[in-house]
Amino acid sequence: MQKVVLLGFGNVGFHTAKALEAANTIDLLQVYNRNNKTLFSEIKAETTTNISEIKQNADVYIIAIPDDAIQEFTKSLPLKNKLVVHTSGSAAMNAIGNGNRKGVFYPLQTFSKNTEVDFKTIPILIESEHKEDSETLRVLASAISYTVKTISSTQREKLHLAAVFVNNFVNELYHISEEIVQENELDFKLLQPLILETAAKVTRLTPKEAQTGPAKRKDEKTLKKHVHLLHGKQAKKIYKMLTEAILKRYKN
Amino acid sequence: MQKVVLLGFGNVGFHTAKALEAANTIDLLQVYNRNNKTLFSEIKAETTTNISEIKQNADVYIIAIPDDAIQEFTKSLPLKNKLVVHTSGSAAMNAIGNGNRKGVFYPLQTFSKNTEVDFKTIPILIESEHKEDSETLRVLASAISYTVKTISSTQREKLHLAAVFVNNFVNELYHISEEIVQENELDFKLLQPLILETAAKVTRLTPKEAQTGPAKRKDEKTLKKHVHLLHGKQAKKIYKMLTEAILKRYKN
Repeated sequence: MQKVVLLGFGNVGFHTAKALEAANTIDLLQVYNRNNKTLFSEIKAETTTNISEIKQNADVYIIAIPDDAIQEFTKSLPLKNKLVVHTSGSAAMNAIGNGNRKGVFYPLQTFSKNTEVDFKTIPILIESEHKEDSETLRVLASAISYTVKTISSTQREKLHLAAVFVNNFVNELYHISEEIVQENELDFKLLQPLILETAAKVTRLTPKEAQTGPAKRKDEKTLKKHVHLLHGKQAKKIYKMLTEAILKRYKN
Repeated sequence: MQKVVLLGFGNVGFHTAKALEAANTIDLLQVYNRNNKTLFSEIKAETTTNISEIKQNADVYIIAIPDDAIQEFTKSLPLKNKLVVHTSGSAAMNAIGNGNRKGVFYPLQTFSKNTEVDFKTIPILIESEHKEDSETLRVLASAISYTVKTISSTQREKLHLAAVFVNNFVNELYHISEEIVQENELDFKLLQPLILETAAKVTRLTPKEAQTGPAKRKDEKTLKKHVHLLHGKQAKKIYKMLTEAILKRYKN
């Protein structure tokens, strides 16, 4: 059994705790959060809000707190020479304070409190300062996910950047689209099957193969009409820029 | 039984034909395409490549051909005073030539040849020149889809514009993201669970509620780092513009 202490109980912490508890090769000893959480009642592990009570006998300490708080927080940990990993896509491994063995345990997904996730399908990207800790992290991650990969901090920050495009930026396009339909007394729900299929399509085809639409087929008439139909200055600019990007890809 | 003739057998035509054949209140009399298609063998209906052979006794003629070909094609149809509808999101109802009763039958989805679709979940947006044809189209659409709505040409062109944002533009962001991971010897598959969950999230939450990430939390450090990490000029511009759009939404 691998003994784990989880530090932080936001969205990532909550779902990670549930996944760790569901794995029968893992013993989640304790969950720490700086204040009490009602969701504490949903897990079986011991909980604490007192940093000095953190147990000393875990094999791995997983930090799931906001990126910019990692550095300060790890300095305050009453731990020495333990394997301490964070769960951030963009924070450097070195954000973890000295005195402990550093590592990263990054589950690549967006988590919401009220949504069950199938953790097994979420890739976990691991990294460790010391070679001997790599196997510990691999075994731990493999107990809760089908996809575990060791990548460097450089690769991880690029992966996180790519994730911003497919998650935050895609969501902003959903937002613009919602505004367009609502202005015209239409329900955003009408677009849901298209949204889901657009995402599903790139699990079967490459984005290059999956593309369709007026920009791909250089349909100048429709492109012009669309720019004209858009009210917002920002939406117009985004339309033009993404159209230009698609036109460039398919110019030959 | 509603008798239907389908004109055109590309992606939209193929999937529409399959859906029409599966409905037990519809009799798909015939499918016309200007040239022979191997996929003709996958449907039970009579097929033809000869426009003069198009049957005269259908209740509805559904045109599924490229937008810019609709006008010319309908002029060449050997039909008079029939209900002729097209399946385009962006073509005007009036693209259909005179001499017949015009209408629109727009299934809002992206179709690929080798992918089964559950047509029942696809919204069908209808419109008709003559009031008395509206009920015919509603009955027909309801036989193959759970979601049928009458909308105007103006609403439809806005809906199609919104669809470009959530489909073509989203796919372009997938493409940029794929380039970022591939440049760093990572597999685009790692992003699939995030892509699928980002889409699924806006079926439960509004895009505004669903948003996360560095731009939403005004994490200037990460935003700067990301612009620096991007190689392509175009990708940098797109990053900046979409970040700016998100910053504006959450500025208070």
